[in-house]
Amino acid sequence: MMYNFRPHRIKVYIVFLFFVSAIIFTCCKDSGDSTTSKTDLSELQQRALKISSPMPENAFTEGMNPSDELIGLGKMLFHEPRLSKSGFLSCNSCHNLATFGVDNLPVSIGHGWQKGVFNSPTVLNAAFHKFQFWNGRADNVEMQAGMPILEKVEMSSKKEHVIEVLHSIPQYVEFFRSAFPDDAEPIKYENVEIAIGAFERTLITISPFDDYLRGDETALSDLQKQGLTLFLETGCQTCHKGQVLGGEIFAHFQTPAERASGNISPGRFEITEREADMHFFKVPSLLNVVHTYPYLHDGSLWDLSQTVVLVAKEMLNKDLTDEEVDLLIEFLGSLSGVLPDEAMQLPVLPPSTSTTPLPDVTL
Amino acid sequence: MMYNFRPHRIKVYIVFLFFVSAIIFTCCKDSGDSTTSKTDLSELQQRALKISSPMPENAFTEGMNPSDELIGLGKMLFHEPRLSKSGFLSCNSCHNLATFGVDNLPVSIGHGWQKGVFNSPTVLNAAFHKFQFWNGRADNVEMQAGMPILEKVEMSSKKEHVIEVLHSIPQYVEFFRSAFPDDAEPIKYENVEIAIGAFERTLITISPFDDYLRGDETALSDLQKQGLTLFLETGCQTCHKGQVLGGEIFAHFQTPAERASGNISPGRFEITEREADMHFFKVPSLLNVVHTYPYLHDGSLWDLSQTVVLVAKEMLNKDLTDEEVDLLIEFLGSLSGVLPDEAMQLPVLPPSTSTTPLPDVTL
Repeated sequence: MMYNFRPHRIKVYIVFLFFVSAIIFTCCKDSGDSTTSKTDLSELQQRALKISSPMPENAFTEGMNPSDELIGLGKMLFHEPRLSKSGFLSCNSCHNLATFGVDNLPVSIGHGWQKGVFNSPTVLNAAFHKFQFWNGRADNVEMQAGMPILEKVEMSSKKEHVIEVLHSIPQYVEFFRSAFPDDAEPIKYENVEIAIGAFERTLITISPFDDYLRGDETALSDLQKQGLTLFLETGCQTCHKGQVLGGEIFAHFQTPAERASGNISPGRFEITEREADMHFFKVPSLLNVVHTYPYLHDGSLWDLSQTVVLVAKEMLNKDLTDEEVDLLIEFLGSLSGVLPDEAMQLPVLPPSTSTTPLPDVTL
Repeated sequence: MMYNFRPHRIKVYIVFLFFVSAIIFTCCKDSGDSTTSKTDLSELQQRALKISSPMPENAFTEGMNPSDELIGLGKMLFHEPRLSKSGFLSCNSCHNLATFGVDNLPVSIGHGWQKGVFNSPTVLNAAFHKFQFWNGRADNVEMQAGMPILEKVEMSSKKEHVIEVLHSIPQYVEFFRSAFPDDAEPIKYENVEIAIGAFERTLITISPFDDYLRGDETALSDLQKQGLTLFLETGCQTCHKGQVLGGEIFAHFQTPAERASGNISPGRFEITEREADMHFFKVPSLLNVVHTYPYLHDGSLWDLSQTVVLVAKEMLNKDLTDEEVDLLIEFLGSLSGVLPDEAMQLPVLPPSTSTTPLPDVTL
């Protein structure tokens, strides 16, 4: 059969060609412009992406649909000293957002100037940890948030006190109603935890390392890249891997200060009571590590270089040269990020009323 | 002589008429639109303007030419816990910007959980006070800022410690150089005071009462206007007058709690040692008074209504009815303002180095 030309087919061909062109154009555009296309990445970037990934904007997981009201309420509660017995301490006292979510003390100061047991970990990016606290006694930031409020040596409060304070302030009654619209009784301790957790899930820092993982080859200096290479070759990523380069597993660790005093913390054993967990501690995240001194679970080391040397020896039995330590520190510097402006904006807390329980600074 | 019409004169007349119209239009516009023209103000607004005036944007006086660098440095120092001996307390600990520049405690908690002597006044709008502290022992916010840092029961630091901390942090060396470009030795205690003072001079709250003073008749509710009228008729403005409705004079005052205990503070006498100043205290500002509880120099009264009743009786020998108290409270509510966003944005503090003095939480 001869080719039977039919004019109406021209339209079909033109439409077809248009779609093919559009598809080709789209594909070319994707592989050409995208900075995350694998083929564009350097070998080092690809190796780095095997142990971590760029930070997302927040740490909300599927099914979480946090409203601005919930996050805003969480921010207020994070800064709310009236949740504490004394009316003087808030989450922010020990997880100061002006100092990268830590207090830069070996152990925290709490109610009555009592000292905590472990070094306060940062709240920044904490939601990506698979366990909370050094001994992993909470599963997520929501569960974590509720604990220091009640701890005798921290905020020394009681659930009933927290609920009574919040109920006594009409603005909080309204804020909880807006944040938990489907809840018949919005003001309850569980919701305090959910709200603070929601705010903490927005405390995400974006660092030069993130930009590097996204494909920006210039985000790291040459020394930082050498440091990253050394990090991977030394084996640091055995423990310091994942979204926040840590926070995923527990490791056996005794600090020099503990050994010197003979007072060695049982660590995760206290939670699980399994002999295998004796002296095990959560591997900390390395994000913003330059700012989160002092180091180790007892906050006994102030110097990052000394900490790097110690951990390389203890965990990997490696003796690092001074030059290697310097390069690793260069890389660690690329993990410092900044919080979104919104997270750094202080809330205005509503005033107490005549029914608000008075602060009690006594022990 | 007959009128000798000359065509070229028409142009002159038109131009002349145009200018006259323009001038008339401009004049009408001025008296019609301007919200601050005296003739537009209600009688109550004019009476209010006799005792106070709308808040300016900041509290810098002539000759002060603060740079953004100076104010930014001041904000960092205001939030800087490393100025304290413990590394835990900053200006913001007791003058919390999330709670209107106060700690809402009768007396502040300081180093080692020690208690202060007087109730912490707010830093908001403080630069407009003619004297600082309840006993007026500092002349301005700069002089004030340097004192709690060194006070044993507050931040318990030493000038040498402050200077050593700042010198040890390269970013601070740079920030001081930018903030004090003409100073051969920018890091000195006096400059710490100047920088914190400069930041505090931006802590200005604009309230509905300010809008009212600017001519917005709708800025106050009817009840608030009745309260303002009563305020003026009762004589409250005898002491509570000026830019911040207080902060200008000293008045004799003994609190019921002091009388009950027999432990009556000498007040300004401690500073001047003049018998005439015995038990005299600075009249506090009324701005944001709804938020700056508890009240009086010993922070012994939590309830604003009770405070109004007490002060009216003590100072003016007036017995207020419940209705009058309610109206005065309505007016006082119109004095609550908000800080500029910039002031509420937390700074990011630079990290310590190996030469930074370590915090010392011991007494």
